[in-house]
Amino acid sequence: MKLYVVGIGPGGADQMTPRARAAIEASDVIAGYTTYIDLVRPLIEGKELLQTPMKREIERCQSARDAALAGKTVAMICSGDAGVYGMAGLMHEVCAAHPDIEIEVVPGITAACAGAAVLGAPLIHDFAVVSLSDLLTPWEKIEKRLACAAQADFCLCLYNPSSKKRADYLKKACDILLTARAPETPCGYVRNIGRPGECGTVCTLAELRETEVDMFTTVFIGNSQTRVIGGKLVTPRGYENK
Amino acid sequence: MKLYVVGIGPGGADQMTPRARAAIEASDVIAGYTTYIDLVRPLIEGKELLQTPMKREIERCQSARDAALAGKTVAMICSGDAGVYGMAGLMHEVCAAHPDIEIEVVPGITAACAGAAVLGAPLIHDFAVVSLSDLLTPWEKIEKRLACAAQADFCLCLYNPSSKKRADYLKKACDILLTARAPETPCGYVRNIGRPGECGTVCTLAELRETEVDMFTTVFIGNSQTRVIGGKLVTPRGYENK
Repeated sequence: MKLYVVGIGPGGADQMTPRARAAIEASDVIAGYTTYIDLVRPLIEGKELLQTPMKREIERCQSARDAALAGKTVAMICSGDAGVYGMAGLMHEVCAAHPDIEIEVVPGITAACAGAAVLGAPLIHDFAVVSLSDLLTPWEKIEKRLACAAQADFCLCLYNPSSKKRADYLKKACDILLTARAPETPCGYVRNIGRPGECGTVCTLAELRETEVDMFTTVFIGNSQTRVIGGKLVTPRGYENK
Repeated sequence: MKLYVVGIGPGGADQMTPRARAAIEASDVIAGYTTYIDLVRPLIEGKELLQTPMKREIERCQSARDAALAGKTVAMICSGDAGVYGMAGLMHEVCAAHPDIEIEVVPGITAACAGAAVLGAPLIHDFAVVSLSDLLTPWEKIEKRLACAAQADFCLCLYNPSSKKRADYLKKACDILLTARAPETPCGYVRNIGRPGECGTVCTLAELRETEVDMFTTVFIGNSQTRVIGGKLVTPRGYENK
């Protein structure tokens, strides 16, 4: 019994690995959020589909597990990497009582890496990745992480920086960063990474605070050494000679 | 004038994206650390090679820049992702005075993602990436980052956890984590990610402290919620019902 959890990368076929493609092709059943399934549509003709809307993650994993238990080879599709805010963890949790299901996590390019490449090289050195979604994490915990990351001079990549219900969370996050970092700290954000309409913007931390982003955007905050070089956001590797 | 900085992923051709492959194929000149060039040997027959040994990163980038200035299309090869401890940042720095060189960073699968997939799903939620190499970063800064990450309950991925000169750095790092996390915190490490001899091990933080790893190893430290499920290292997405 084989169950792949597949990271398909940011979206385009040119950023999906051959290993991810092979896992999808080897599967009888394709599970995933409808939008992600659409991204691999050309690969899945004739296969059985288990589509669920967003926020039905547990159901989605249970359906995939049940298909595997029924003897089918299943691929659960995730955008980006399966192991960064993806389904790899929940899939292991849901299959805990079924050690006969072999789960293979197939990594993909996550938005931190794909978005950093669009902006230049903001995450070249130590960095932290934080989701601003408080659906599953108390906001106090998120604030604590932002404060500690600010204090430790980590570059930051923020996932889920906004939604309709959380319109001011990025502003709150910037305020926490501003307690430890200069308003002119170079930052940036990328919308629709690796998809049509991809657009990267470089700005300052003060400007980022006043920016409204949507849920298709990934945000990058530089550390004390980050600079703008030729319009690109670049964190030097080293701290000597600075 | 075109200069690609290409992340080829952990090693095998099946984890390199078509976009990375196309960038290499489109280039006249291939630059990089000899070991990484060997990983793409089948793609570069007949191309000009600029090979340099390790620790000659500035020279390597300058040679690549000079080849681009001479009108050649150049690909600088990095293992993993070009933007995570890769050459993307230095390449921008070295080309700062030459805005006519178009630098395109091609992302790849970094060891944090590839290694996490081997172990299960340790980085499914907020995490920090820290290099234990103090060649370019003062050790005090590294300690500060580890302490802040421990305090903020970040999962951690450690790059460059050891070398001949830094045999006890992982032990020191574990001691810092142990001030905030239980000795039985689930951890793991992966050797030769995505290459022949790939080997993942799950252990506790106390056991990790006593483990000797080499420079081909990436280390993962769970947060307060991380568990071992079916021999795999899994961090739950959410904090509710815990």
